[in-house]
Amino acid sequence: MVKFGFKLKKTLGKARVGEFSTAHGVVKTPIFMPVGTKASVKALDSRDVRNTQAQIILGNTYHLYLRPGETLIAERGGLHQFMNWSGPILTDSGGFQVFSLGENAQISADGVEFQSHLDGSKLFFTPKKSIEIQRMLGADIIMAFDECTPDTADIEYVTQALDRTHCWAKQSHACWQKQKTSAQGYYQALFGIIQGGLHQQLREQSAQFITALGFDGIAVGGETIGYNMPGTQQVMNWIEHLLPIDKPRYAMGLGQDPQDIVDAVQMGFDMFDCVGPTRLARNGALYHGQLEHRGQLEQGRSGFKFMSAFDQGRLNIGRVDFKTDDEVIMKGCDCYTCKAGYTRAYLNHLYKSQELSYYRLASIHNVRFMIRLTEEIRAGILKS
Amino acid sequence: MVKFGFKLKKTLGKARVGEFSTAHGVVKTPIFMPVGTKASVKALDSRDVRNTQAQIILGNTYHLYLRPGETLIAERGGLHQFMNWSGPILTDSGGFQVFSLGENAQISADGVEFQSHLDGSKLFFTPKKSIEIQRMLGADIIMAFDECTPDTADIEYVTQALDRTHCWAKQSHACWQKQKTSAQGYYQALFGIIQGGLHQQLREQSAQFITALGFDGIAVGGETIGYNMPGTQQVMNWIEHLLPIDKPRYAMGLGQDPQDIVDAVQMGFDMFDCVGPTRLARNGALYHGQLEHRGQLEQGRSGFKFMSAFDQGRLNIGRVDFKTDDEVIMKGCDCYTCKAGYTRAYLNHLYKSQELSYYRLASIHNVRFMIRLTEEIRAGILKS
Repeated sequence: MVKFGFKLKKTLGKARVGEFSTAHGVVKTPIFMPVGTKASVKALDSRDVRNTQAQIILGNTYHLYLRPGETLIAERGGLHQFMNWSGPILTDSGGFQVFSLGENAQISADGVEFQSHLDGSKLFFTPKKSIEIQRMLGADIIMAFDECTPDTADIEYVTQALDRTHCWAKQSHACWQKQKTSAQGYYQALFGIIQGGLHQQLREQSAQFITALGFDGIAVGGETIGYNMPGTQQVMNWIEHLLPIDKPRYAMGLGQDPQDIVDAVQMGFDMFDCVGPTRLARNGALYHGQLEHRGQLEQGRSGFKFMSAFDQGRLNIGRVDFKTDDEVIMKGCDCYTCKAGYTRAYLNHLYKSQELSYYRLASIHNVRFMIRLTEEIRAGILKS
Repeated sequence: MVKFGFKLKKTLGKARVGEFSTAHGVVKTPIFMPVGTKASVKALDSRDVRNTQAQIILGNTYHLYLRPGETLIAERGGLHQFMNWSGPILTDSGGFQVFSLGENAQISADGVEFQSHLDGSKLFFTPKKSIEIQRMLGADIIMAFDECTPDTADIEYVTQALDRTHCWAKQSHACWQKQKTSAQGYYQALFGIIQGGLHQQLREQSAQFITALGFDGIAVGGETIGYNMPGTQQVMNWIEHLLPIDKPRYAMGLGQDPQDIVDAVQMGFDMFDCVGPTRLARNGALYHGQLEHRGQLEQGRSGFKFMSAFDQGRLNIGRVDFKTDDEVIMKGCDCYTCKAGYTRAYLNHLYKSQELSYYRLASIHNVRFMIRLTEEIRAGILKS
């Protein structure tokens, strides 16, 4: 059986190049993971996703539990077979929904009561339940159940939430240890999640607690991560020296802007996921810009910069000046949309006309853009 | 310059096999033409359309005139280049909108005043205007401007409408004769349209008038066609003997059900278009069934039948029994969706979850199904 094994290949400052193995193939880091919440990366089919050269994709446990249900998916041979994706998959634990459902989630020591966004029915998630659902879904990497805390929470609340997260991490780990295989019979790696809000002491405490439990990988969670980049930097400054070098580090939910990924790699993160690239694409924001490597460390950084002629690295395809623009989204881009020759003028027309083909062509570009960015950072580290 | 030339290859009863040439390639008939109203076959990109083995697609003059405008498209090199489709294209004349806009269209002897469905502005279409727009768009086949009449119209109204249609056919023809080339410099074929509602005398009169004008092809229009199949049969019974054998015969808007195409080929039609296959796909109705050929003529027919285990040849993917169905939409189907192995269970899930990828995968199946059906009828006629 292929077990999860992370190998660190090279470092440059805090930036790292590595790789890990799963039953569905090897993943080279740093890596951006497109999000397929409901067993579909929005607007794309599995061949589209493969053509972006995505190495691993995400599924959301909460959504798949509600519809079509983990039993139905297990009966279909697991999530890979169900969605016709032969590469590695990671599922989250449902813990993020504690945060995003807000008042529709009641948290207790044992777990979280959710109200289904589909039919309003009451559901109860515990660490054991989360791991069991993830076993049935059959992802290559599964996540410990945690509580994602908002930045605005005071230290009393975050302390209590962190106690729960640690308790749930132990329970998740214990549940996983009995049987580290999916319902489909292959090895599932389990990642733990460091929480602690914007409190140095709590983040340090969480890093020590989570790394001591013996997970296959370490994730850093919380509203801050990816949403508040100075906060993300601060958290990583506090905990980076506490993280084992021989395990991948996953910044959960980070990857809306190309700059964020460039920065996060230089903080020492290896893995990223975000709905941003596909959501922005659907809203008309297409990435444009390139990685530059100054080839030297500056202030502890590896010298990578993301440069773009557009604000935030986004070209807004709905703008009137693109109506008559015969260029592709970005010259030199190797995504299907750009290589096939779809012009900004045509995409502007499809976007304005709300044609379904727009959402796919735009999403292909943005996903491929993020994947390629991580490929280029990796190559830059390796050749430095 | 490649001119339009239709060659009749074989007949079987009234069913015909032929082919015609355009600047963008040869089209083998009988043929189903997918509809790309706003320069996009809904949910598909041009490679998807090519992969369905569509030989020719439609664009709608009225919609493209409103957005993005024929001048913008001409400046981009014409409709083919704009939408990245290198095969033949046919544009309608805008005449169907006279019918479908209902009270928002005022008809006079000179033309039709429309109210834009986008911004309510007043627009005026004449035969000359329609041909000029179609020259700018640059389709390989363009249509004479006509008035599409509803089945419920009385003989007085249909007589007046038919007078206009004939007058406009002459004007369209005259306008086209001055310069039979598109703004992009290649030959454009012009088809005339037979109208006359459900009145034998008017249909016969129209068939004689339109065939006498010297069009490259003959279309049969009206609400009846494709919508009311016994009516379509009746119309064709009245006029078939009046149609030249050396010109393609286009049943406008026909092709919602596989059976309709099988029947219409056996009435003597060669070309079909319909938004049905893509619209039905989006609404969860997926074609299923196969052509059978009894190999002998029965009651003047060629012996082709469409057989399906499903009502109207449609499988409703949203039905609860498909939730756990691990088959592809249709065994033996060579569309991308079926060949890639997407199951009914997965498509049921995507459809219920309103995932964008559903619309594309379903539309690919339905379009390929209709194209393949015409391929099989063609092969059946050739080998009989």
